[in-house]
Amino acid sequence: MTEAYARYRERMSEIQALNSALSLLSWDQETLMPPRGLASRSTTRAALAGLVHDRATDPALGALLEGLAGTGQDAAAAANVRESLRDYRRAVRVPRDLVTELAETTTLAQQAWAEARTRNEWPLFAPLLGRIVGLKRREAEALGYRDEPYDALLDEYEPGARAADLARIFAEVRTALVPLVEAARRDPADRGEDLLRGGLPVAGQDALGRHILKDLGFDLEGGRLDLSAHPFSTQIAPGDVRLTTHYDADDLQKSLYSTIHEAGHGMYEQGLPADQVGLPLGEAVSLGVHESQSRLWENQIGRSRAFMSYLLPLLRRHFPGRFDGVAPEQLDRAVNVVRPSAIRIEADEVTYTLHIVLRMELERALLRGEIDVADLPSLWNERMRADLGVVPADDAEGVLQDIHWSFGLFGYFPTYALGNLYAAELHLAAKRDLPGLDDEVARGDFLPLLTWLRERIHRHGRELAPRELVHAATGREPGAGPYLDYLRAKFGALYAV
Amino acid sequence: MTEAYARYRERMSEIQALNSALSLLSWDQETLMPPRGLASRSTTRAALAGLVHDRATDPALGALLEGLAGTGQDAAAAANVRESLRDYRRAVRVPRDLVTELAETTTLAQQAWAEARTRNEWPLFAPLLGRIVGLKRREAEALGYRDEPYDALLDEYEPGARAADLARIFAEVRTALVPLVEAARRDPADRGEDLLRGGLPVAGQDALGRHILKDLGFDLEGGRLDLSAHPFSTQIAPGDVRLTTHYDADDLQKSLYSTIHEAGHGMYEQGLPADQVGLPLGEAVSLGVHESQSRLWENQIGRSRAFMSYLLPLLRRHFPGRFDGVAPEQLDRAVNVVRPSAIRIEADEVTYTLHIVLRMELERALLRGEIDVADLPSLWNERMRADLGVVPADDAEGVLQDIHWSFGLFGYFPTYALGNLYAAELHLAAKRDLPGLDDEVARGDFLPLLTWLRERIHRHGRELAPRELVHAATGREPGAGPYLDYLRAKFGALYAV
Repeated sequence: MTEAYARYRERMSEIQALNSALSLLSWDQETLMPPRGLASRSTTRAALAGLVHDRATDPALGALLEGLAGTGQDAAAAANVRESLRDYRRAVRVPRDLVTELAETTTLAQQAWAEARTRNEWPLFAPLLGRIVGLKRREAEALGYRDEPYDALLDEYEPGARAADLARIFAEVRTALVPLVEAARRDPADRGEDLLRGGLPVAGQDALGRHILKDLGFDLEGGRLDLSAHPFSTQIAPGDVRLTTHYDADDLQKSLYSTIHEAGHGMYEQGLPADQVGLPLGEAVSLGVHESQSRLWENQIGRSRAFMSYLLPLLRRHFPGRFDGVAPEQLDRAVNVVRPSAIRIEADEVTYTLHIVLRMELERALLRGEIDVADLPSLWNERMRADLGVVPADDAEGVLQDIHWSFGLFGYFPTYALGNLYAAELHLAAKRDLPGLDDEVARGDFLPLLTWLRERIHRHGRELAPRELVHAATGREPGAGPYLDYLRAKFGALYAV
Repeated sequence: MTEAYARYRERMSEIQALNSALSLLSWDQETLMPPRGLASRSTTRAALAGLVHDRATDPALGALLEGLAGTGQDAAAAANVRESLRDYRRAVRVPRDLVTELAETTTLAQQAWAEARTRNEWPLFAPLLGRIVGLKRREAEALGYRDEPYDALLDEYEPGARAADLARIFAEVRTALVPLVEAARRDPADRGEDLLRGGLPVAGQDALGRHILKDLGFDLEGGRLDLSAHPFSTQIAPGDVRLTTHYDADDLQKSLYSTIHEAGHGMYEQGLPADQVGLPLGEAVSLGVHESQSRLWENQIGRSRAFMSYLLPLLRRHFPGRFDGVAPEQLDRAVNVVRPSAIRIEADEVTYTLHIVLRMELERALLRGEIDVADLPSLWNERMRADLGVVPADDAEGVLQDIHWSFGLFGYFPTYALGNLYAAELHLAAKRDLPGLDDEVARGDFLPLLTWLRERIHRHGRELAPRELVHAATGREPGAGPYLDYLRAKFGALYAV
């Protein structure tokens, strides 16, 4: 290791320490912090975020990285330098006054959004959203792009992704899914969902969740499971990856699938190389790939027929008497229901991506200046009717439902859909490489799949661009095919479509 | 507020943010952190501590403070500048190589101490303790002192305290207490301690503890109660003060009194002026005064006859059936037992201070070079026999029992004894100012006392030196008198002495 590379690692390790503290401050705020701690916590987080920003944009770091780039390091060091230089150049392109203005505007916007949603008054939020769109356009210009401003924003969450490519793939998805949704909606059969509804004690749900976490391979000696209003996962540091869930005694599916979903995220974090902590090779490659991990475990595995054979005995153990006489097929039906909803976070496997495609198209058009913030409510509702056959009762369950835009997150939603697509790509390839996968899942042996994911995805960190990583893992150019085939096969069997 | 003062506040607020993150990292480590998180957590904490140290010793901060000192600010600003300058000058006096050597040596010493205690092998720890004593002598020389090196170390925890003064007061305490202990030991009466031993469900202990916290005035909307191996309290930030306790179904006294003790610490932190956060006026004045708050609530209040009238109905509520037919007098006897033990943390109200006096005398003699580390085990055991009539079975329960020296904490123990003395001083003055105090305690109305403490102690932060603060609160020069009178009166009534 050269002396310059050592100095680079030292700088990165200081940033890592600050980020680790920030992760804990955020996690704690969502899980345990007493209510009166909020004001101080915001101040503390802002101060630490400022210290991180100063370090990440320090010209001395830039000079060090420029000096290191292209010198004859080993492949790992070269990848770290390449990606850190990429991060540095992105960070310094955005002028400080724009960073400040975005922070101030989004702070106001978050409050305005919360009030607008509670009171169902879109005009309370619209002007601030308009300002945010303007600022994001300026940010995109500052960051630079080849084809269109949206690409510059996408690149933050999904390095190298381009709006035009995504739009093409998403159009294919939409064309295929809209009729599938329509057909499923016409199927009048009872799905037997009551099986997992009502009178399911929280203690049993918690024990079940922990049991499954352990079986899946989430290391609880190197992580935790706690409660929060909205489930999330976060890596505090290597050896400390935390998941949250949320229990509702009337609804087992919520906690069951949010726990499995977050475990997918958490196992990705636990599989990143610990010796590269704080460096790009120790980081997740993109939000899309991150979401592919959560979705694969949640849907391709957790909602598979094979998983029901594994799950049923556990349900019987943790809810004595409740699941006597139930067959795996009944579970399979109950957890695979297509039912269009106005609300994204309540969406099923088939309709979810349609919610995302709608959002991305609106964001892209806003950034291009083709539509105005004032047009959003009606465009939203029209598209919901066209794609899902559902019209939101009001703006609160329509255009105001998501918090993301109030945070200035544009280009973020598409990563959810990419996650669905990548999950299907990876699952297909894993089934090819692991011919016994279904049997293994049925008997609760998840190690072969986890090992495959560790090898193909987790251990690589940011070695390759996300799309190239998935390509290398599967041997094929990622697209919509496996995702659509998977949905057609699964719901074709379960529904009269 | 002048521009220079604003810059000072800004610097302090950055340090505060880092310290707040450090507090959360420590709290989390003791309560929730998964085991595999330890290595990363140590790295993160060390990095943040380094950032704090850099800022606290930044010559630019020193210059700013020197410039501000003596300029015509208001009294609060002047007090902040005076105390910050004091902290700055102390911090820069210790050379960096000594700081590093102490950190490295104490890290090794902590491991060696743990092993030495487990294996009961003093020689595993003695050489490292010898090195630590040498380093602490160097630290004392670097810090400077008027009379003796020990004063320089004491000053870190109890600003302005002098070894000679403490030694004089502690000698008086010892002269008075040794016969009291001796007499109590000869009293053969059963103390009825089984009342609070065995079969006390943890859920009941937890509910009882939270009930009492609320009644005492600890704000659970601005704080938490959690579990840890050793109870402690910490302020993460204003509005976020956390206590921990430890439950043992066979021993109610442990959790009951550790919860009340930590609540005393916590209410002090909650009573510090939030608008002075990160500045000396927003900080506790000393460890001795801090301990006076915990001890006053734990002992003068929590083990008083009046408190038993309050406690008994709660015990009946949280442990149905268990306390039927029990009288407050029986509780009073059971929680006020004098029983010399070799172990400090198991010590009762009367013997506790004697454990401390022993430690301070040994520390002081080591720093003066009058004794050698090799002499410690025999000196320790002789003194235990002389003062408490107890001889430790081995070094593990003798000279190796405390972790403090392995951390380099010399001059720290005396603050525990000062806490006991100050608690008695404050209690005496509070009783004078609040003639109905006993009745209020008996009916669970703790607000008058808390208000008195807020007014006399909490709200002042570091406005006065600790001894002057207690003097101002009570109207008398602090000494051993009230403490000894309190113990004689209480145990005179309970024991045949």
